[in-house]
Amino acid sequence: MTHIALDNDLPGITGLMANRPDTAAPLNHLAETLLRAPASLPQGERELIAAYVSHLNRTPFCAGSHAAFAAAQLVEGQALVDAVLADPATAPIGDKLRALLAVAAEVQAAARAVSAEAVAEARRAGASDADLHDTVLIAASFCMFNRYVSCLDTALPVSDDYYLESAHRITTVGYGRAVSVPA
Amino acid sequence: MTHIALDNDLPGITGLMANRPDTAAPLNHLAETLLRAPASLPQGERELIAAYVSHLNRTPFCAGSHAAFAAAQLVEGQALVDAVLADPATAPIGDKLRALLAVAAEVQAAARAVSAEAVAEARRAGASDADLHDTVLIAASFCMFNRYVSCLDTALPVSDDYYLESAHRITTVGYGRAVSVPA
Repeated sequence: MTHIALDNDLPGITGLMANRPDTAAPLNHLAETLLRAPASLPQGERELIAAYVSHLNRTPFCAGSHAAFAAAQLVEGQALVDAVLADPATAPIGDKLRALLAVAAEVQAAARAVSAEAVAEARRAGASDADLHDTVLIAASFCMFNRYVSCLDTALPVSDDYYLESAHRITTVGYGRAVSVPA
Repeated sequence: MTHIALDNDLPGITGLMANRPDTAAPLNHLAETLLRAPASLPQGERELIAAYVSHLNRTPFCAGSHAAFAAAQLVEGQALVDAVLADPATAPIGDKLRALLAVAAEVQAAARAVSAEAVAEARRAGASDADLHDTVLIAASFCMFNRYVSCLDTALPVSDDYYLESAHRITTVGYGRAVSVPA
């Protein structure tokens, strides 16, 4: 049961955001900027990094949500997301994305400098400064979002259909208006 | 040396923010909301939670910055901040703040539900839902800020005076305008 009283019964971060529009505003602003605004990495790959970090953090609400958001925006869909979450080393992805996922895993593990080897491998595979910056900040931000949702012990959705419905909303409306505050 | 090229030589997060105003905007919006906007916990205590999490994450730029920001806003100043960073269990603080720091330490450690014991202890000491929510989100957000600054291997300031100057700026101007983007 969620550690704090909420004014709604929405699952995961949506319940927290509906309950606290003051903090929801900058969090949605950040998610929209990192995951949907124009950037060097495609939206589907950015969501895949978010899903992978959430998977490593063993946070099912965020992992389920961002896996669905990635699948909705990658040509190869859910099968590719499943392969990456199972093992990025063997997933059918390009070397650049594989190297960036390795960088993201180092960020998930600890707040210390990413290894020179991981950065060099990403650069060899064609990663730009913007790719590296955005990968690190997306991975870091999910170390926040995952904790916010799981440390407060929020509820999971009653059905996995919830994640598909959220994916439709995120890919059509975006994060800025993803949470409707109850009247 | 910072893992990505920056267009400036500012230390820590300030160099990243000046380089990327697009992501700086939501990050400053979040910091302003969590650490300076009206809330149930005083600004100095919120900065102390930020400093403590940054200290646990062994991230010197963030720990130095938020320790200075806390000291500037707590009546007991730097001596109290030093005592908390050394050991919250023996620091001369109230039971509520001590219990909230224990909650923050659990959030720093992992993206899993804070223990029922830690939540119960905080409630016994008078913590409200808002106190618990804000403590968890501040601690979670510093798991992001600490990683952003340290995973990209940003530079430390040349002198600790930098933190005092930043404290003056944050406590007078706030986070919203804390970063001046070079022309």
